[in-house]
Amino acid sequence: MKKEEKYIIGVDLGGTKIAVGVVDKHGRVLKKKKEKTEIEKGPFGIINQMLKLTEDVSREYIQDIEAIGIGAAGPLNTREGLLLSPPNLPNWERVQLTQPFEKKFKIPVYLENDANAAALGELFFGAGRGCANIIYLTISTGIGGGIIINGKLYTGANYNAGEVGHVVLDKDGPLCGCGSYGCLEAFASGTAIAKRAREHIIKEGIKTKILTIAKSTENITAENVFLAAKEGDKFAISLLDEILNYLGIGIAGLCNIFNPECIILGGGVTKIGNILFEKVRRVVDFRCFKPIADAVKILPAKLKDNVGIVGAASVVIERKK
Amino acid sequence: MKKEEKYIIGVDLGGTKIAVGVVDKHGRVLKKKKEKTEIEKGPFGIINQMLKLTEDVSREYIQDIEAIGIGAAGPLNTREGLLLSPPNLPNWERVQLTQPFEKKFKIPVYLENDANAAALGELFFGAGRGCANIIYLTISTGIGGGIIINGKLYTGANYNAGEVGHVVLDKDGPLCGCGSYGCLEAFASGTAIAKRAREHIIKEGIKTKILTIAKSTENITAENVFLAAKEGDKFAISLLDEILNYLGIGIAGLCNIFNPECIILGGGVTKIGNILFEKVRRVVDFRCFKPIADAVKILPAKLKDNVGIVGAASVVIERKK
Repeated sequence: MKKEEKYIIGVDLGGTKIAVGVVDKHGRVLKKKKEKTEIEKGPFGIINQMLKLTEDVSREYIQDIEAIGIGAAGPLNTREGLLLSPPNLPNWERVQLTQPFEKKFKIPVYLENDANAAALGELFFGAGRGCANIIYLTISTGIGGGIIINGKLYTGANYNAGEVGHVVLDKDGPLCGCGSYGCLEAFASGTAIAKRAREHIIKEGIKTKILTIAKSTENITAENVFLAAKEGDKFAISLLDEILNYLGIGIAGLCNIFNPECIILGGGVTKIGNILFEKVRRVVDFRCFKPIADAVKILPAKLKDNVGIVGAASVVIERKK
Repeated sequence: MKKEEKYIIGVDLGGTKIAVGVVDKHGRVLKKKKEKTEIEKGPFGIINQMLKLTEDVSREYIQDIEAIGIGAAGPLNTREGLLLSPPNLPNWERVQLTQPFEKKFKIPVYLENDANAAALGELFFGAGRGCANIIYLTISTGIGGGIIINGKLYTGANYNAGEVGHVVLDKDGPLCGCGSYGCLEAFASGTAIAKRAREHIIKEGIKTKILTIAKSTENITAENVFLAAKEGDKFAISLLDEILNYLGIGIAGLCNIFNPECIILGGGVTKIGNILFEKVRRVVDFRCFKPIADAVKILPAKLKDNVGIVGAASVVIERKK
């Protein structure tokens, strides 16, 4: 029965690292490899780096690999396999990403937005198994999202659906990377948390453990804020509560719109753990219609460090459905 | 070929009026009748009123009627044909609405949320023809919505999806009917517009044409505000601009989430016309990702006064697909 045991390659192209892995049909990663993205080499060099990594991990499975899935930051044109102009890969403009893989490996290659890929990974192999309607949020440097409707990825009119980090929570709030003001991302991403802490500390001359941990204001990270809060620092605790309230309000809005079975939260900021999930739950219970609040589970993502690879592989499963 | 010319009855149950009509397969209303909802008669009396109206309009078509669609305010259980506890029909608790129709007319009967029904009406016969992904908003006493995904109505985990009026735009904003604060509905519904005008006028002793038109502060309606703005009243113009900015921000959020082909706006507040659509367009262009703003058309609803009847009839078409 060896012939039926087909594998998928998942390729996760990020601005700081590339991860490639061989994934079986149960979502298990059989072999993987990770490298720093050689940004300075430009599109051509990085594509070669990806091809090389793919060759390396797939060597012993090559006869049984059925397809390749690639996850990358948008905006992109999934149908044509194009990266348009991702902010995390400067100077990439309409780069053809799937053809070089097709040419080299002679198997089908599929491209998808990385947050969408992660949502599919959680749907097939993670926290979302058995759910039909899921909103997945990744809360890290930015806030990205993937929407599963009736068990299928929803991508909208031109593949750009799921920008759930860019709902406005305060029209006069902080400037967001997208050009708007007061977006969820401008309040609750890791970058935003660090920035907000920094600004308060500088402006109000606050004494806080955040500064003791970070050593200097420039070095403050979201993790420093979490750590200080865990150590009982009052300023960190109140700042975090304010930020998690915004996160809860954004998620409550998504619940009222989608009435989903499942909200799945992943990304670095969720490493803070229970305090985040409990606060979001409270805000959702307060701000949502009761049958909507009752229906929704708010769950931590399950795939953790493998989400990039398994997500990318899941794109293949989705497209072949 | 007479046999193939089948008709549908659309029944629109509202808190103030009931409208019933015979609809052909092109969405044309062949005959209709409207009555004040006899609220004081309770569920049993009102259901009889609906049955009577249905009998009246369908008399000359009765042999060719294939099914009945009913639109009503939620919350409801569409699968079981139950009205749960609609705020516009006080003291209705888990009322079976479809069975009495099935019993009397011996044809299939389908129940749907009225905003969802209206969205389907616009999809099949109105402004949304040819669009796959549509967000429909009805902006009147409250703000309701219907979501069309890949040409089908999306209803969520327990039929409550589409509460697009209940995304929070300002966590400390005005109390909303839903129990939360600062919802889109609490800023931009007709009720909210009148309330906001009233509060400003009383609190700040503003001299405005709104008051001249309305005669007294208690009588102020959203229409008075529109009228005063059209006559050049400065306070009315600035109030309206502020409110339409909130509406635009709410819609921009929906665009970033859904990347829809089409936003369709209906309901009394949209009668204000161009000024509303132009402002929403500007806010969407400013607050949305460019490919998302480029993809979306923001259109006035087309079915106007027939939306209740044609929407309810469209529920039948959707369910039989």
